[in-house]
Amino acid sequence: MNLICFKENLKRNLDNALRIIKYNSTLPILNNFLLSTEKGMLKISSTDLEIGFTSLIPSKVLKEGSITVPAQLLSQFVNNLPNKNINFEVKDFKLYLNCDNIKASINGLNAEDFPIIPKVKNDSILTINSKIFKNSLSCVINSSAISDARPEISSIYIKINPDQLKFIATDSFRLAHKTIFVLSGDNKEKIKINFEQSKNIVLPLRTAGELLRILGDQNDNVKIIIDQNQILFDFDNTQLISRLVEGNYPDYEAIIPKSSETKCYLSKNDLEESIKLAGCFSSKLNDITMKTNSEKSQMEIFSNNSEYGNHHGKIDSEIKGKDVTIVFNWHYFLDGLKNINEDELILEFNGDQKPAVIKPAKNADFFYILMPIRNS
Amino acid sequence: MNLICFKENLKRNLDNALRIIKYNSTLPILNNFLLSTEKGMLKISSTDLEIGFTSLIPSKVLKEGSITVPAQLLSQFVNNLPNKNINFEVKDFKLYLNCDNIKASINGLNAEDFPIIPKVKNDSILTINSKIFKNSLSCVINSSAISDARPEISSIYIKINPDQLKFIATDSFRLAHKTIFVLSGDNKEKIKINFEQSKNIVLPLRTAGELLRILGDQNDNVKIIIDQNQILFDFDNTQLISRLVEGNYPDYEAIIPKSSETKCYLSKNDLEESIKLAGCFSSKLNDITMKTNSEKSQMEIFSNNSEYGNHHGKIDSEIKGKDVTIVFNWHYFLDGLKNINEDELILEFNGDQKPAVIKPAKNADFFYILMPIRNS
Repeated sequence: MNLICFKENLKRNLDNALRIIKYNSTLPILNNFLLSTEKGMLKISSTDLEIGFTSLIPSKVLKEGSITVPAQLLSQFVNNLPNKNINFEVKDFKLYLNCDNIKASINGLNAEDFPIIPKVKNDSILTINSKIFKNSLSCVINSSAISDARPEISSIYIKINPDQLKFIATDSFRLAHKTIFVLSGDNKEKIKINFEQSKNIVLPLRTAGELLRILGDQNDNVKIIIDQNQILFDFDNTQLISRLVEGNYPDYEAIIPKSSETKCYLSKNDLEESIKLAGCFSSKLNDITMKTNSEKSQMEIFSNNSEYGNHHGKIDSEIKGKDVTIVFNWHYFLDGLKNINEDELILEFNGDQKPAVIKPAKNADFFYILMPIRNS
Repeated sequence: MNLICFKENLKRNLDNALRIIKYNSTLPILNNFLLSTEKGMLKISSTDLEIGFTSLIPSKVLKEGSITVPAQLLSQFVNNLPNKNINFEVKDFKLYLNCDNIKASINGLNAEDFPIIPKVKNDSILTINSKIFKNSLSCVINSSAISDARPEISSIYIKINPDQLKFIATDSFRLAHKTIFVLSGDNKEKIKINFEQSKNIVLPLRTAGELLRILGDQNDNVKIIIDQNQILFDFDNTQLISRLVEGNYPDYEAIIPKSSETKCYLSKNDLEESIKLAGCFSSKLNDITMKTNSEKSQMEIFSNNSEYGNHHGKIDSEIKGKDVTIVFNWHYFLDGLKNINEDELILEFNGDQKPAVIKPAKNADFFYILMPIRNS
């Protein structure tokens, strides 16, 4: 291999490729990048055997070839190089780097020992604008379960229908639900679904997190190819391939309340401030109490800590239906508010034991369901 | 106690006071602030028994008094309040807070149980512009020893003479030395020393670090009062009082080279870049090799790692005297360069076993001495 590429083109892609790598002491080659030539470009690959990353970098290829080298070292070295052309040359399993007055050689391994990143059989294809896709994942990702104990909910559930996409995440204490209407207005231009039936996939949380990071501020198209066990995201000369979670996603629809006994209309900012203040005095359970006062058109928010003291705040709120006093985990409540970009909110309650619904007053594309802490 | 003060005035001072507190489980009152009234203002005090902090906050005092309350809780609560007036009222060892629609009560302790922050006897007084003082501390602080094993060098040594101030720090591997000429130009206006003899103090590293943070971007006067064991910094309604390190500072002057066998003139930026690149390939000792080549007017910088590979860089340098090959810890070398604000550097060597001197080519007020790694 012998090629020349520009430092700036390389840097961002090396950073992205490096993030995929989880330090592996039993299979040290996984701590390496695979460098190879393809379509007249330099190809960088990395994998942790669950996610595979490849990126093509515009280069002047003088001689085809490949090598694998320690990822952390190459990345750190390239980051410190001046913004100039870099020559990569491979001889006897060594990578020789040349840039300006600077020479380095990095000991590599045979490219053939690098695990093969599987191909996805060209099954279902969906093309979506990267901003819409990123925004939808962002709205739900922090409700996903972080622990590996239940891999089926340490994930984002994506339901693809010809007319709508749904993104769902839950950790069994709360659930976030975002809908994209494929056929409405602008979206018609920005989303193409080329299959008729519906398709549901369970995307691992880690893959979703890496995607959000790698997509960055791009405003591009992401091509998504799905086969039985795997998913491929293809954008901007970059491919991210990941296994899908096997097994069924829980029947979340059963917990979505069909009606409500109490409805509160209030300002998101007021509620957010008040919850943070109450949170200062919450106990180890992170519990705060909300009490509707329909007569005074106020929502009262309390917390009480026997050791430190207590707090009492009031915010204006139009309240319809039965008054209720209900206890929540304040961190979970704030997580739900974070994904609402509108100041007017609706809270819906069905007594103090059943899940509440938090949603923007106007936009019908997002809701958040939160289990109360039971007052026993 | 009963008073009203504005949130914005309070916030920064609470943050500063909180930083002084080191969580203490044996003497829990040290996790509290002491709130009291003084000179018609609210006074906040905190201490870890080594450093004491007090700050006066403009307030409308309705009734004098005092209380101590959990520092973390008060600070977090006030941070989340709206930018409005806050009423503080003390009744039965409870602090009642009132702001807008928000009420809280915090369980406090008797103010008399709070440790007394000692007074400094009005001994020697020095007044210095906060920017000059901060800049001088910053130049040397990262050469101080971090470990508590030798408290006399986990410190900044400050030598105060009527005509100059010297700031010195060392961890026995390197030494940073900054001089302020009191009588030169601008400084005449900005530094006032009102005693004739010289005075040397050993300021604990932690105190220096907190001072740097609290002084922030202020451009104000700092009044410094020193007695036998303690030092007081007084600025902007704030007082920081600290014990001084007992015992003698090591005789650092003996290691300052009086002459040099080799002098190199080079660009700081070139050297910095080249050291970072060499650092990528250094071994666990963090060693990189510098080799002067007076014939080619070049400084060569190498590193070699038997496992990963090697690096070779060259930078232009005028070299006077004997050529030398010398090994350094690259992190320590970069630390020295960080404090030089000039692009032209002079490096002075006396063979490969003796300390080197790094200094700016023009400004004579700073130098950095670095021990080589011995090539045995």
